[in-house]
Amino acid sequence: MKILGIDPGLNITGYAVVENRGTGIKILEAGFIKTTSKDKIEKRLDKIYKSLLDLIKALKPDALVLEKLYAHYRHPVTACLLGHVRGVICLLSAIEDIPFFEYGSTRIKKAIVGKGHASKNQMQRMVEHALNLKQPIQEDTADALAIAMAHINISQRNL
Amino acid sequence: MKILGIDPGLNITGYAVVENRGTGIKILEAGFIKTTSKDKIEKRLDKIYKSLLDLIKALKPDALVLEKLYAHYRHPVTACLLGHVRGVICLLSAIEDIPFFEYGSTRIKKAIVGKGHASKNQMQRMVEHALNLKQPIQEDTADALAIAMAHINISQRNL
Repeated sequence: MKILGIDPGLNITGYAVVENRGTGIKILEAGFIKTTSKDKIEKRLDKIYKSLLDLIKALKPDALVLEKLYAHYRHPVTACLLGHVRGVICLLSAIEDIPFFEYGSTRIKKAIVGKGHASKNQMQRMVEHALNLKQPIQEDTADALAIAMAHINISQRNL
Repeated sequence: MKILGIDPGLNITGYAVVENRGTGIKILEAGFIKTTSKDKIEKRLDKIYKSLLDLIKALKPDALVLEKLYAHYRHPVTACLLGHVRGVICLLSAIEDIPFFEYGSTRIKKAIVGKGHASKNQMQRMVEHALNLKQPIQEDTADALAIAMAHINISQRNL
């Protein structure tokens, strides 16, 4: 079972493909896609789309997982721009026929740390520990890893 | 010069392809794509994407035009969902290599009615008049027509 977790953002989109091998979770690939505000939005979305498409073609994940929309965005335009990236990712799951899952942030935290109000720092340390990472990883990549791992925990343990 | 104007929405996306023939503006195709909230978001976005892609393949527009994002959305989640649809459309313009334009609503109104604070009703009547339409058309289709026509007026008259 290979899971693609994505933390979408117009500036930086974190991604992680993890595989649950029974004996533990292995990272197949993780990183982030960066776009520049110097480029037009359609070019930035195209870069995100094509990078993720390449990843999907190479690793053939069985599920694509995002954090659910939440209602407390600071600014509607920011929310709408994030929506642009999310839309491209949803579309990708439809076009590539990969089952799509969304979890609220509380559920993701609970599935990783055991409590829904864990701090970002606690989450990151837990992910690093679970994956036996030797050094801290980039924040959006860590979020994508957490989302992918949460899906594994949720589907295995009926959390 | 063929212009594709789109009024995006998750429930209803209006579209219109118009051609400027010197002697007047002709509608090549106009209508709307409806999706149901019973379907999952990825399926709804896929329907919008594929319908617009078919339209583009058939009519080969030279420009794709949207109304600009505005800052006064009522609710961030609504703004974010609209963003999903907009993202898919921006991506389409990049993938199909169609120049992408955005205009603020005031500029669109000014280019159609002559004043930036025209009512929706005034806009619609002006569009119907300019295109010599015999009967009122669906609201989102009319908005898409207005956006496409505004682009023609703006680019011809340097508005």
